Amino acid sequence: MVHEKLNQSVEILNEIGVDCWMTVDQESGVLSDPVMDFIVGTGVTWLSFFLVMANGETHAVVGNLDGEKFQRLNLFRHIHTYRDSPRETLVGILDKYNPRHIALNYSLDSAAADGLTHGKFLKLEQLLSGTPYTERWISAEPVIAALRGRKSEEEIRRIRKAIDITLEIYDQVTRQVRPGWTERQVAEMITRARLERNLEPAWEEEHCPSVFTGPQETGAHSGPTDRLLERGHVFNTDFGVRVDGYCSDLQRTWYILKEGETEAPETVIHGFDTIVGSINAAFECIKPGVRGVDVDTVAREYITSRGYGEYPHALGHQVGRDAHDGGVLLAPAWERYGDLPFAPIETGQVFTIEPRLYLQHHGVVTIEEMVQVTPDGARWLSRPQNRLYLIS
Amino acid sequence: MVHEKLNQSVEILNEIGVDCWMTVDQESGVLSDPVMDFIVGTGVTWLSFFLVMANGETHAVVGNLDGEKFQRLNLFRHIHTYRDSPRETLVGILDKYNPRHIALNYSLDSAAADGLTHGKFLKLEQLLSGTPYTERWISAEPVIAALRGRKSEEEIRRIRKAIDITLEIYDQVTRQVRPGWTERQVAEMITRARLERNLEPAWEEEHCPSVFTGPQETGAHSGPTDRLLERGHVFNTDFGVRVDGYCSDLQRTWYILKEGETEAPETVIHGFDTIVGSINAAFECIKPGVRGVDVDTVAREYITSRGYGEYPHALGHQVGRDAHDGGVLLAPAWERYGDLPFAPIETGQVFTIEPRLYLQHHGVVTIEEMVQVTPDGARWLSRPQNRLYLIS
Repeated sequence: MVHEKLNQSVEILNEIGVDCWMTVDQESGVLSDPVMDFIVGTGVTWLSFFLVMANGETHAVVGNLDGEKFQRLNLFRHIHTYRDSPRETLVGILDKYNPRHIALNYSLDSAAADGLTHGKFLKLEQLLSGTPYTERWISAEPVIAALRGRKSEEEIRRIRKAIDITLEIYDQVTRQVRPGWTERQVAEMITRARLERNLEPAWEEEHCPSVFTGPQETGAHSGPTDRLLERGHVFNTDFGVRVDGYCSDLQRTWYILKEGETEAPETVIHGFDTIVGSINAAFECIKPGVRGVDVDTVAREYITSRGYGEYPHALGHQVGRDAHDGGVLLAPAWERYGDLPFAPIETGQVFTIEPRLYLQHHGVVTIEEMVQVTPDGARWLSRPQNRLYLIS
Repeated sequence: MVHEKLNQSVEILNEIGVDCWMTVDQESGVLSDPVMDFIVGTGVTWLSFFLVMANGETHAVVGNLDGEKFQRLNLFRHIHTYRDSPRETLVGILDKYNPRHIALNYSLDSAAADGLTHGKFLKLEQLLSGTPYTERWISAEPVIAALRGRKSEEEIRRIRKAIDITLEIYDQVTRQVRPGWTERQVAEMITRARLERNLEPAWEEEHCPSVFTGPQETGAHSGPTDRLLERGHVFNTDFGVRVDGYCSDLQRTWYILKEGETEAPETVIHGFDTIVGSINAAFECIKPGVRGVDVDTVAREYITSRGYGEYPHALGHQVGRDAHDGGVLLAPAWERYGDLPFAPIETGQVFTIEPRLYLQHHGVVTIEEMVQVTPDGARWLSRPQNRLYLIS
């Protein structure tokens, strides 16, 4: 998989017109550039440099005691080791190619493309001071966005497996959860089901799953509480697992029947159908070349046109090695999303679609599906929730 | 523990004379500033700012959907949320205090103090453009070094527990390993012993433990191979576990007896005693105010004076939440260690002492102990290896 992504990165460099891409890492155990998982597949101790050139040449400059590991890995064609300082080796490699630009892993908007720390950036400037290369930095964000965004068949297989397991666990929720359980009990049930399968959560365990019930307004990213699941309320969960390094991220909504009810009241069904409708409207709109903001607008306006308040977040994000995988966002033009809503969607990308709305007296209705962009539209990776799940 | 470290950081700011310290994080699931574990204790989704002022005031600026979590945590005194942009809130807070300096988490040398990414630094400059604050950045390295370095009693208790378990597992190695096992088999035995105790490794599993046997020169940071443990050779391991978030990091050396031998040959004993002697020499030298480089020099010269080559790495590093915990290093004045060897040692810090030497025909002899700096010297946290362990 690392070989595959490293080769893919050479193709991307040529397509985008970048002649040199450099990833810098150090003490990976403390803090590691997320790109390392894609093109290196292991960590380093000392300050290290991984260069990929558009002509296909690859260089690793690593501390002497990391050297043997990289020889064994046999991934980068040229392995250079140093004891005192990497300066001479690094300058030598750059002199050999004299690249027009050197793409570094920083981005103002996308955390997934922002793995170079500020100190390592300053260190790089210090190491290369007196050379022309300190004037040639560009952001590697387009390279990383393409590398993460364009999923291979194997990557999709892993994501699908994570999705299938998540939905299997959600089916278990529908069968087992009863009125009077606490949010925390629902979360514990989901966590047990995950641990039985020996899987990691797709994000921080404290809110994976999150569980929200009832009409009290709550943040979407806090952990489950001792609040009780009451009849007449809706509850929702947000959960995902990591399978062979790849994530799912899915939300579902349940209604807890009152005594004597056999289905949810009209107002709840109307809210639920509005969420399904907005997801379908967004799905129809997704295809290569469309901007993320345009998809968000379609879903957002669908919901407000049916009389509900707009959701206070983005419609969707990419998913891959991370639940929030960076790159183009299906998001409104709010400053906090920077430029990410304005980039065009590409074939191969995997997105969530996750609108929400609030029903007074009942709670938050939300669904999160996952789709993949195809050459002429999108296809579902998740089996969409098209009816409200009922708990009695 | 997070409360304790957050309060400690206020003391440190006053002592160092820094009036404002700001930690910036975003999408912690993708990449998180290591400082977050110390003073925040949870992750964030949207671009967030955590300000600690020397006057004891603390502010968190987080995305709206992260807000409730921070209200519940009740850790930062002032919680501010935003939907579109954090700009106005952030400028408002800075205007209120008008700090002389704003310490940010970047460092040219210490990965543990270098959690601010370059993109987030640029974003910060963009958000604060037009204000005087973009001229007031300083590195928070001294703050973070003190915060990580000065261990509380509870932190020491956790580290000791990690050490005790590691030594217990090493005793098991001495009892169970036999000539003819492969490096990989030794590593598997150690990993099983760790998993039985439900513990995480102290660093990346692929070389935690590392196991090296025999006279073939190898890197210290590569994983175990199928090489056999042969009679007449030495083998060593490097291993640690994480207990309640805190690490151990210890190395031991074994000798595999030849048929008929009851102890190791004189040359091996001489090498082993040299390592013990150099560790003791370093131990005697450690006390507050001494520079790391001076401790390294004592151990290094002890070894070369007895006729061996010098070790190709630093003598020791700090240990805490991370096996490589940043701050002052017991290291030679090589460029790759930057300024870290030249800072003075402080009371409360925990160091490894880990020299090595190479014995032709036998292999690498190395021991790694852990010590804590006291007001007038140092004390052992590990039970030192003072005799070569024998395998027959």
